[in-house]
Amino acid sequence: MRVLRVRYNGHSFYGRLDGNHVHCLNPQLGLNDPIALEDIAVLPVVTPSKIVCVGMNFRDHAEEIGFPVPEEPVFFLKPSSAVIGSGQPVVLPAESGRVEHEAELGVVIGRAARNITPEDVPAHVFGYTCANDVTARDLQSRDGLFGRCKGFDTFAPVGPWIETEVPDLSSLGIRAMVNGELRQQGSTADMLFSPHEIVAAVSRVMTLLPGDLILTGTPAGVGPLEDGDEVRVEIDGVGLLINPVLREPSGSGQEGPESEPPVQ
Amino acid sequence: MRVLRVRYNGHSFYGRLDGNHVHCLNPQLGLNDPIALEDIAVLPVVTPSKIVCVGMNFRDHAEEIGFPVPEEPVFFLKPSSAVIGSGQPVVLPAESGRVEHEAELGVVIGRAARNITPEDVPAHVFGYTCANDVTARDLQSRDGLFGRCKGFDTFAPVGPWIETEVPDLSSLGIRAMVNGELRQQGSTADMLFSPHEIVAAVSRVMTLLPGDLILTGTPAGVGPLEDGDEVRVEIDGVGLLINPVLREPSGSGQEGPESEPPVQ
Repeated sequence: MRVLRVRYNGHSFYGRLDGNHVHCLNPQLGLNDPIALEDIAVLPVVTPSKIVCVGMNFRDHAEEIGFPVPEEPVFFLKPSSAVIGSGQPVVLPAESGRVEHEAELGVVIGRAARNITPEDVPAHVFGYTCANDVTARDLQSRDGLFGRCKGFDTFAPVGPWIETEVPDLSSLGIRAMVNGELRQQGSTADMLFSPHEIVAAVSRVMTLLPGDLILTGTPAGVGPLEDGDEVRVEIDGVGLLINPVLREPSGSGQEGPESEPPVQ
Repeated sequence: MRVLRVRYNGHSFYGRLDGNHVHCLNPQLGLNDPIALEDIAVLPVVTPSKIVCVGMNFRDHAEEIGFPVPEEPVFFLKPSSAVIGSGQPVVLPAESGRVEHEAELGVVIGRAARNITPEDVPAHVFGYTCANDVTARDLQSRDGLFGRCKGFDTFAPVGPWIETEVPDLSSLGIRAMVNGELRQQGSTADMLFSPHEIVAAVSRVMTLLPGDLILTGTPAGVGPLEDGDEVRVEIDGVGLLINPVLREPSGSGQEGPESEPPVQ
């Protein structure tokens, strides 16, 4: 099943994609008829309480960026404010001179998990999605810490949907294309740690909640994104995530939306 | 004003602390009379969409853990699942042999912010709180990445309240005590980057939302926490955060609460 998160008639809900129509998955909304895709605003597939990313899970990528190959899964976090959906632009920040794509398989948690085994993981997974762990490579080496280089707004494209039925996780092709040129080509078969091993390892540290997103690492071939590019992440049996790339206007001083203090 | 987040009569809300009573700050709940503190469950003061932590913001602490002194603010994230309130136990995980306290001033965002200047920051801050950036020091050096060493459940004690009026941010004493013994003693005067500079720097990267928490770095004197300890973080004019310390029972295989998939 392909699951989209959408807005329609003032409601936000998950829906099952069936050709060019969406079937609302929330029976409480009373939307029993299929809704044409063109009448719907498609939202990013998750609003995660956290995004956990595994580093250096492909030997060839660890080598290309000069990091040691880890003996157990190592990870860092991206902020949920970085999430965008398919079709939304990746914005290149003025602070970086080198922003790169990283095509990754994303795991969407469906049921809270703490301290589970790899064998338990499938019962806690809602589905899989395509993700791009966009990275300011120059800031990664300059800062040492990953908060900035991985954390800019728009640096976490995910989608276009959540695929709940992936028949064989052990050999899915993962590709990144920029303007139609193949840049990354790998397979989950080459991961140092499998998606289930990764989710179990993260759950030994922190409680995973429904909607949380775990990115499972990128194969070799990462490369720069430029103003006007189109970047695609394609994963066999999962989907195709497409994002345009724009450079941030210089001197853009947006202040963000007005909002209330957290007193409620 | 000291602001608590509490649960009372099935409602969760922010309240103003006045002696031993709380005044509900949400007029829609119709709770017009002061409520005795003993009748209320005190919750962690924030449920942040992200926790951003600045690393090495005190020269003496950077030297004691062997990290370079940064030329601009560098940061990493902690997961919101790590948040606990005053009085709740820090749990030492079996995976680590050395867990340490890090006393820090926490900034609570009140109004969304993106790309603001240090001068703009006060208008976006709701208040300040005490925080403990609990860290598995052995895993920090082993992993290189900070997702695990900083991310265990219970590794982000914050509270006991949000202080909205701090007269002079530039010279607040910051202390950590373990079992009554003074371990850390620093001052915001010794920060490499001021809290306002830090919030502005983070806002150049990511959109800050109400309730988000920014930790501003720890002074020298970090040290180990052991089973049965009591750790206190005290900040002049802000508050006193107290947490007991417990070791995780070996072989504890809790699976977390049952919950629904993210289809809503």
